[in-house]
Amino acid sequence: MSSQATTESEISRLEQIQEFLDQDAWREATQLLKKLQPAEIAHVLEALPLNQRQILWDLLDTDQDGETLMELTENVRNELIQNMDQEDIVAATEHMDVDDLADFIQELPHDVTREVMESLSEHDRRRLETVLSYPDDTAGGLMNTDPVTVRPEVSLDVVLRYLRQLGNDVPRDTDQLFVTNREDKYLGTLRLADLVTHDPQETVAEVMTLEVQPFNALTAATDVARRFEQYDLLSAPVVNEEGQLVGRITVDDVVDLIREEGEHHFMGSAGLSEDEDMFAPVIVSSKRRALWLGINLLTAFLASWVIGNFEATLDKIVALAVLMPIVASMGGVSGTQTLTLAIRGLALGQLSSKNAGYLLAKELAIALVNGVLWALVVGIIAGFWFHSTDIALVIAAAMMINLVAAAIAGALLPLALDRLGIDPALAGGVLLTTVTDVVGFLAFLGLATVFLL
Amino acid sequence: MSSQATTESEISRLEQIQEFLDQDAWREATQLLKKLQPAEIAHVLEALPLNQRQILWDLLDTDQDGETLMELTENVRNELIQNMDQEDIVAATEHMDVDDLADFIQELPHDVTREVMESLSEHDRRRLETVLSYPDDTAGGLMNTDPVTVRPEVSLDVVLRYLRQLGNDVPRDTDQLFVTNREDKYLGTLRLADLVTHDPQETVAEVMTLEVQPFNALTAATDVARRFEQYDLLSAPVVNEEGQLVGRITVDDVVDLIREEGEHHFMGSAGLSEDEDMFAPVIVSSKRRALWLGINLLTAFLASWVIGNFEATLDKIVALAVLMPIVASMGGVSGTQTLTLAIRGLALGQLSSKNAGYLLAKELAIALVNGVLWALVVGIIAGFWFHSTDIALVIAAAMMINLVAAAIAGALLPLALDRLGIDPALAGGVLLTTVTDVVGFLAFLGLATVFLL
Repeated sequence: MSSQATTESEISRLEQIQEFLDQDAWREATQLLKKLQPAEIAHVLEALPLNQRQILWDLLDTDQDGETLMELTENVRNELIQNMDQEDIVAATEHMDVDDLADFIQELPHDVTREVMESLSEHDRRRLETVLSYPDDTAGGLMNTDPVTVRPEVSLDVVLRYLRQLGNDVPRDTDQLFVTNREDKYLGTLRLADLVTHDPQETVAEVMTLEVQPFNALTAATDVARRFEQYDLLSAPVVNEEGQLVGRITVDDVVDLIREEGEHHFMGSAGLSEDEDMFAPVIVSSKRRALWLGINLLTAFLASWVIGNFEATLDKIVALAVLMPIVASMGGVSGTQTLTLAIRGLALGQLSSKNAGYLLAKELAIALVNGVLWALVVGIIAGFWFHSTDIALVIAAAMMINLVAAAIAGALLPLALDRLGIDPALAGGVLLTTVTDVVGFLAFLGLATVFLL
Repeated sequence: MSSQATTESEISRLEQIQEFLDQDAWREATQLLKKLQPAEIAHVLEALPLNQRQILWDLLDTDQDGETLMELTENVRNELIQNMDQEDIVAATEHMDVDDLADFIQELPHDVTREVMESLSEHDRRRLETVLSYPDDTAGGLMNTDPVTVRPEVSLDVVLRYLRQLGNDVPRDTDQLFVTNREDKYLGTLRLADLVTHDPQETVAEVMTLEVQPFNALTAATDVARRFEQYDLLSAPVVNEEGQLVGRITVDDVVDLIREEGEHHFMGSAGLSEDEDMFAPVIVSSKRRALWLGINLLTAFLASWVIGNFEATLDKIVALAVLMPIVASMGGVSGTQTLTLAIRGLALGQLSSKNAGYLLAKELAIALVNGVLWALVVGIIAGFWFHSTDIALVIAAAMMINLVAAAIAGALLPLALDRLGIDPALAGGVLLTTVTDVVGFLAFLGLATVFLL
């Protein structure tokens, strides 16, 4: 058995395509491509360097363009769109879901957008405009407008007949139908599992569940994701301010969102976007990264300026220059741990100004415990290394001070940044190391100047 | 409308409970607790400091213990279990799903495990043993053993009657039934959406889809997650080596897995576990973090040792001590970006030894572009600061060297670690900064020794 993709087989498929491309074996590559699903093709495309990516994209059947584009990360998608002519772009949108189309259309040049809009039926255009009327990162921006609705007064038997009539118009991933009245107001949810297990003579009103809370179309997408997680939802209704059903969110879009949230934190801490393309053009990547390096250079120069104020001290005791990176580095590592905990707490909605005090107290306690421990270790090693009890005492004290500063900065920076509307996942790390570098060098060299000279 | 939880209302609910606890208003806290779902209670518990967490846990209705425990992260759950008596633990397991129970039972002391096993019916015990027979991080460990199965030769009408008979025994989140033969071999999948849209006279064999590939029970959980994402699955069948259906994986467990994967990378880069509890006991946290700080101290001492070899040089030109952290820091920042890209590529199965060369080439090109740019900037600033063209040239050259080293280490370390079976998300950052610190100090002080003395 076991015909499904394991990592091994996925990588080997990738390697196979790469081998075909390396050998200019287009025909074999095309044939292999035909066997893959859009999501798998997208996966392979992302893993290919630029020139091979374009070649593979050109080999791809145009029928698969649209779905494959939607599976790609934003940067890779935009890169490919840039090289497509208008006609192909419009053709690619043909089989897209409305929620996908809404994401896609916003990244197109204006004239192509107009063309795509014109290619739609009146009905689809109206649906698209509904989704586009809500911001990207809300329930409304996330929803699809294809929910199947039923009236409360009809019997399950009638519902079953209605569904058979609809046939393939019922989306494949339908797990529940939504119950609305004549004014389109959302009333409740009829699960397919309930539909098929109850007596067909019962009415929808009797069988429907009222447990499912609809999302307001303006609810933040991150809250939608959290709620899907907490309630193990497969799909959920979306209503407008008047309580009218406007769409449906499905868990597959939430899964993508959760993946992106995770990557946002991980990539953000290195100053990268979650959409960062592993094989982005050198010039594009260089530009984006230059900004990040520039910001970090400012903080590095700030640290240097602090050190520069102690040139006279360093001139007299060169051992300080040897040891000073240790104090700064340990502070940075320790503070990053606190910062990471706090950023996750914020992202999960578990950290607020209400319990920040408890976190700070706990992190300070940990800093004291580890401060004493590592101050001792570092003090003893440094003392023996440079045969100086004074140096041992100074570096131990500086370590304590810096670990405490790191705990304070790590616990409070994310909250402060969040209140200022700055993304802590992006800015937190840079600011934290600025603090731990400055405090580390200042404490160590300052104490040395006072006590060792 | 809009009765659903937004971040604001979630935080305010959290703040409300915290306020009740701060004021010892147990009755009000208990009442508020009664209105919450297990997942929401778990969310609140995780956000409470230790003593308040225990108080709230004691206020909780024992009926909700089991479900709430399953929603908690591992560390918080284990903390609470430690303070429960055996009787309560056994009671908490009563309403757990088999897949949850399998996770739960492995963390209990042996005598409690035996007691829980004995409290199960013969049927449930056998199901539990099936799940337990597969490792935690495989499809088998993730699955539930409750799939509803049907035979291929019966008509949809018969299926509908069978489901009505089963009634509430059909799991709520059922989106598809699995088709098996008399030997329990998996044959195909009958989607509820298809069941309700087709003519009841058709047979299961006519309507079922063969598209759904079953997972082998030993497939890695991360591969299961990727496949759920790629194919937008809601549930999937799991088969054993003989092709017999043994269980079903549902997307809600995959959602948790994807969340954990994301947190693993983010938390791991700070040396924390994704299960890290924001309010873990100080001693427990201190111990775990001490290890991480100790490892980092080793690398910091290594850097110091490198610097120590240039004491004579530093003694003569103190400006070098002021500037040297800049070279190391820029290398670290730049290398971390490459490392982050490579770790994500590995995690997604998009990076292998096959295309690592392309990544390395691209990252080297970026390092050269940014190296030249920032070497110029740093060189000019340093030159003016210390009125020395020589220093400007040395620091510029050292920057170039370190950015190139950072690109090489960032691109190749994750692959090397992965091949050695070491988690790159955990060890990559430490090793990378070791490289960039050592190369940075060595290049800068080394060049200075050769050209400036």
